Amino acid sequence: MTASSSSPWQLARRAERMNPSVIREILKITERPGIISLAGGLPSPDSFPIEAMREATARVLADAPREALQYAASEGFAPLREWVAEHMAERGVKVDADQVLITTGSQQGLDLVGKVLIDAGSTIAVEAPTYLGALQAFAPYEPQVVTVACDEHGPMPEALAVAKGARFLYVLPNFQNPSGRCMSETRRAALTAAARAQGLPLVEDNPYGDLWFDAEPPAPLASRWAEGTVYLGSFSKVLAPGLRLGYVIAPKALGPKLLQAKQAADLHTPGFNQRVVHEVIRNGFLREHVPTIRARYKAQRDAMRAALEAHMPKGCHWTVPSGGMFFWVELPEGVDAVALLPKAVELGMAYVPGSAFFAESPKANTLRLSFVTVAPPVIERGVALLAQALREATP
Amino acid sequence: MTASSSSPWQLARRAERMNPSVIREILKITERPGIISLAGGLPSPDSFPIEAMREATARVLADAPREALQYAASEGFAPLREWVAEHMAERGVKVDADQVLITTGSQQGLDLVGKVLIDAGSTIAVEAPTYLGALQAFAPYEPQVVTVACDEHGPMPEALAVAKGARFLYVLPNFQNPSGRCMSETRRAALTAAARAQGLPLVEDNPYGDLWFDAEPPAPLASRWAEGTVYLGSFSKVLAPGLRLGYVIAPKALGPKLLQAKQAADLHTPGFNQRVVHEVIRNGFLREHVPTIRARYKAQRDAMRAALEAHMPKGCHWTVPSGGMFFWVELPEGVDAVALLPKAVELGMAYVPGSAFFAESPKANTLRLSFVTVAPPVIERGVALLAQALREATP
Repeated sequence: MTASSSSPWQLARRAERMNPSVIREILKITERPGIISLAGGLPSPDSFPIEAMREATARVLADAPREALQYAASEGFAPLREWVAEHMAERGVKVDADQVLITTGSQQGLDLVGKVLIDAGSTIAVEAPTYLGALQAFAPYEPQVVTVACDEHGPMPEALAVAKGARFLYVLPNFQNPSGRCMSETRRAALTAAARAQGLPLVEDNPYGDLWFDAEPPAPLASRWAEGTVYLGSFSKVLAPGLRLGYVIAPKALGPKLLQAKQAADLHTPGFNQRVVHEVIRNGFLREHVPTIRARYKAQRDAMRAALEAHMPKGCHWTVPSGGMFFWVELPEGVDAVALLPKAVELGMAYVPGSAFFAESPKANTLRLSFVTVAPPVIERGVALLAQALREATP
Repeated sequence: MTASSSSPWQLARRAERMNPSVIREILKITERPGIISLAGGLPSPDSFPIEAMREATARVLADAPREALQYAASEGFAPLREWVAEHMAERGVKVDADQVLITTGSQQGLDLVGKVLIDAGSTIAVEAPTYLGALQAFAPYEPQVVTVACDEHGPMPEALAVAKGARFLYVLPNFQNPSGRCMSETRRAALTAAARAQGLPLVEDNPYGDLWFDAEPPAPLASRWAEGTVYLGSFSKVLAPGLRLGYVIAPKALGPKLLQAKQAADLHTPGFNQRVVHEVIRNGFLREHVPTIRARYKAQRDAMRAALEAHMPKGCHWTVPSGGMFFWVELPEGVDAVALLPKAVELGMAYVPGSAFFAESPKANTLRLSFVTVAPPVIERGVALLAQALREATP
């Protein structure tokens, strides 16, 4: 593949697999003034701990400026790795701090997992639907992506045969992006047992687990099959995404290779950011802070539920999420959410069509709505506009 | 390749190409108290603009905290991209701000270039010696690496035939890591013309170009063949590496693919860091600050030159660098710098053996010394210990 006839550049084959993110293109549209965006998965900026960040940056630049601004270890800042290990222990996952790799957002964790585990043509398995950003992270490594059939609890253990020989199953057990579903205790136990019996490793992604509204989710898959699970965590949803801080917890069989991949990718995650975040959280800050985010998002979830019930025409379906950031809406059969989007934008709102979240057999009549970015009155207006677009498009 | 007999994980073939960094392993040794390290390429922390960082972080968190802590565009912070475009124009490279991609350190730029341009088995060309971190960034994409013969001015145009059909030639024209050499105006013109005639694209890496001691280096290769050159820049050596901020300037044929690779790799470089750095530099700060770094490093270069002249035994050779961070030392034929290292560490100093910097045919009798990390009296002691190790090892 040559970039253009007059160009000296020859692109790698994998570059053909790379495509602009659908969400990103939609986000551009939503920057137009006056558009109510329920599209992006942007946390509410009202939840950002700005005062704590001010104090922490000042303290780091007073106490350890030379260390914070110097090159640092590829593994990450040791006290932050220890914090993560303790945090995981509270969730029933026993890990040594030296199994924790700090990453530049958990998106980087997905890239490193792909780099270390995927050969061109090898099989990986995902949920239907699944996180679009993971599909994009894995795509450059040229996997064959198969989909494990899912019900409202997540991937069905009896459907794992399709993933025979796969390098891993990528799964989001908590308030999944985009479906909002949370895997039950029973399903976690059964899925992990089936995967283990089949020798199918798991890549467990957990950006939303702390954002529960009613009850804490069951223990992670990693607590059930430690040596067969890579676990990815993030500070984006409990502190702020603009710091780009996540982590990977890997079984000892994988740790050294992930570390080498990390080193080749960006040497290390910004040490300044790691020290600032550690300064913010080291004395239990999140125990006070995260409940305020939960309360905020629960109220916004309730506002979106009420708005959907009040405005959406008959024939639309959704499940009320018990945490996280998203409603997943099924429109009446035959309605194409991609085709509907320009109409919705014209009326003044935006969403993400669900088809982007399927590796195979996209469901055209689905869409994702985020309830975390804007306040309840705006959520209601946005949903009302979506309902209006739908009515005008399907007379 | 299976990670271990009892493990469910199967590693990608490329994982076999990943190896722990020699430098990183040496850096671990040098953390022992009392070791004088001339090994790492760590900028002097005395050069970090701590007061400016304090003011800038406070201002960003006062003026735009919600934007700085939110998800941001994959391309980078628009005003910072504009700053880079203006900075490049001053160096004779005309680029639009939309050709600038902000990266998580320029190491990430190398990874993205590899991802977009290297197929397994395709050829890439490098200098001898070359930057070890680039070899590590490219290795996971499984290239065939060929070496273009070099003299004291860099790659020789008449030696480019070996790179026939290569995806690119990776080259550091300014104060190269590890050799310290700077490419002359004549060589730049000849090399670019030969590469262009051959249709061999260039990847030009310039982390050290601002660190000149006597005269500014000639204009970048990118100013001579814009559509055939990807240019990588960094804020690590003029501000601080712990912020992990670099940039890639790509011809329009490559920009979109590099952006998609960036998005898949970590969504975006921390917006907070981008805004803080822009706040530091936007009013000409570097025009005052960089000359203080140059003066500091020139004095340290002079101290190392004097120490080498005073202490090193006959049969050792080095060229005095006119900028950058490194002396490249040739020991007498037959002396193996890898074998010598434990002796040097035992005496209390560390360096990097030169063999790590060769893609092919390593020269065992070479080593790299950094003059930027420690102050002149410590430089002198370190060089004296190296000379002692050498005398004791070669009676």
